[in-house]
Amino acid sequence: MDERVREHAAVLVDWSARVEAGDDVVVSVGPDAHELAVAVAEKLGERGANLLATYSSGELTRAYLRAHDGDFEDDPAHELALYENADVYLSLGGGRNTSATADVDGETRQAYSSANGEIREARLDSRWVSTVHPTRSLAQQANMAYEAYRDFAYDAILRDWESLADEMGRLKELLDEGSAVRLVSSDTDLTMEIEGRTAVNSAASVAYDSHNLPSGEVFTAPFATEGTVAFDVPMTLHGEAVRNVRLEFDDGEVVEYDAEQGESVVGEILETDEGARRLGELGIGMNRGIDRYTDNILFDEKMGETVHLALGRAYDANLPEGASGNDSAVHVDLITDVSEDSRLEIDGDVVQRNGTFRWEDGFEE
Amino acid sequence: MDERVREHAAVLVDWSARVEAGDDVVVSVGPDAHELAVAVAEKLGERGANLLATYSSGELTRAYLRAHDGDFEDDPAHELALYENADVYLSLGGGRNTSATADVDGETRQAYSSANGEIREARLDSRWVSTVHPTRSLAQQANMAYEAYRDFAYDAILRDWESLADEMGRLKELLDEGSAVRLVSSDTDLTMEIEGRTAVNSAASVAYDSHNLPSGEVFTAPFATEGTVAFDVPMTLHGEAVRNVRLEFDDGEVVEYDAEQGESVVGEILETDEGARRLGELGIGMNRGIDRYTDNILFDEKMGETVHLALGRAYDANLPEGASGNDSAVHVDLITDVSEDSRLEIDGDVVQRNGTFRWEDGFEE
Repeated sequence: MDERVREHAAVLVDWSARVEAGDDVVVSVGPDAHELAVAVAEKLGERGANLLATYSSGELTRAYLRAHDGDFEDDPAHELALYENADVYLSLGGGRNTSATADVDGETRQAYSSANGEIREARLDSRWVSTVHPTRSLAQQANMAYEAYRDFAYDAILRDWESLADEMGRLKELLDEGSAVRLVSSDTDLTMEIEGRTAVNSAASVAYDSHNLPSGEVFTAPFATEGTVAFDVPMTLHGEAVRNVRLEFDDGEVVEYDAEQGESVVGEILETDEGARRLGELGIGMNRGIDRYTDNILFDEKMGETVHLALGRAYDANLPEGASGNDSAVHVDLITDVSEDSRLEIDGDVVQRNGTFRWEDGFEE
Repeated sequence: MDERVREHAAVLVDWSARVEAGDDVVVSVGPDAHELAVAVAEKLGERGANLLATYSSGELTRAYLRAHDGDFEDDPAHELALYENADVYLSLGGGRNTSATADVDGETRQAYSSANGEIREARLDSRWVSTVHPTRSLAQQANMAYEAYRDFAYDAILRDWESLADEMGRLKELLDEGSAVRLVSSDTDLTMEIEGRTAVNSAASVAYDSHNLPSGEVFTAPFATEGTVAFDVPMTLHGEAVRNVRLEFDDGEVVEYDAEQGESVVGEILETDEGARRLGELGIGMNRGIDRYTDNILFDEKMGETVHLALGRAYDANLPEGASGNDSAVHVDLITDVSEDSRLEIDGDVVQRNGTFRWEDGFEE
């Protein structure tokens, strides 16, 4: 076994999920994530945690959903009981085909998702962490050779998370103290209010309200957005290539949009509901282990020297206790490269210029 | 997908487990049983049952158990809750190496098993069925090519179960009415009492108290065994080859034993506890789709023209309501070929001679 698989498991179990003796852990295993699952099982054994492995396969889901009449029972008792009694949920993604469920119709998918709301909530109430094992299928999606993709993925995952958490803490502090953010770049000049919102230092650990591995971003929930933003990082949304989306905001809401490619997908997303036309997230990527786009949001949005904005639902962690932020059935991230001709301002002070933060060498005021 | 995989799934879901709309089903998937799992998921979708898939991997178990200090928590709450709320449990065996857990020490294995007693009971309280997907690893264990092994396995699994159940019902009736069984063959002359015991018509369906697919045997719980029996079907027990075991019984208990190969393993089994020296089962194989030994008890003991006897624990289904039969920590089946020079008598009447039952063509009184 590649030693990095064991290191990945150790980061996941110890740093990310903070697993302790006696924890009841559910590990969801993708069909090609077997090797990581073995390493995680070993680590859970060492910690004296209790392991139950579930099997998460797009092909199973497809077969089940296509055969079903669509009238799903709400939150089946056996699955709900499993997650209500789980302390930790670790999702080890890794299938054989990222398009495995492409021919399941959206209505069925939506009905199944709606019927399992309490199960989803129970999972989110646990110390959950989502990661992926670098598979050939993900390498293909990234247009990369398998070995090169593994190097890429482990560079992103095996960080010095403690020191990155410290650095991200600086940006979190500035955002928590600030009232307005301005992002300026070629084709972009956008202002957002953030007064009263709390930024999340997403350091890939439940101890930081962060549930992705890799992570490495600081995010908050903006409002009252004004201006124009262009997203130059290519991605796939709903199975379609999307390139160079441009959004124009007035009074917090998208009033104009276009895209070089995939414009209709963007239109569909915006029409989902009222909240889909407002921002739910402003995220600043700070993981410099990620040095290229791989068409996988788990990695792309964390990339150093990028900023992403999400249309739709805001995260509770960014809001004052009990308050509710932007609500929507969707949360779609769009990413822009800020490594050149860009600046990020908080209350008029430049905190990042051309990808370099004010506390880094080479920063120009 | 080989159409037989879909047929296997249909037999399992409809005939064996009697799945109905709204059933909460747990499907345990071996790493190489993916294809069967997809077919089962499709069938469960058609039936409107609720699916949760677990991942059952010897390599995960090995990694977990070897890393653990051996002080296991009793019946972890999340796993217990899952099975207590499940209506149906389908185990789809199929790993990549039948020796995957060979280097886990027996004490750890035993401690883990003891700690999970309530979970095991909860599974046995559901409509559980155990089957296997024909994998390369099972083909290897059978000394067979993969394609030939698939043909073998589907011949055993895809029977006309309804008509086999009818035929087995005849033998069950004779056993239920009888008081004593005598088995005579070369090197074998054994008598057993069966008065008051109920035979199980093991027709591969929970509707018949039968939980294996394939099945195809009629079994009961004998007592007061006297005489000698020789088992000529080769098998592997505790990882060791066992050949031509001979047991001598007096007053229900083994008083002498020897074996051409694996004698020490037989000795260990007999010394487990007091019940290990008595019989827990007399089974008569009636599945003529199974035409060779494959060193897999799921198949071997069901083979037509064989009889097996188990040392150790008796099944409750064979006993009067509330009564307890032979008790032991073990239940080890040993098999003898009765296709030649053999006869099976119930109360002095020959019911099977040289593998042919009295209701079959060619039977000689």
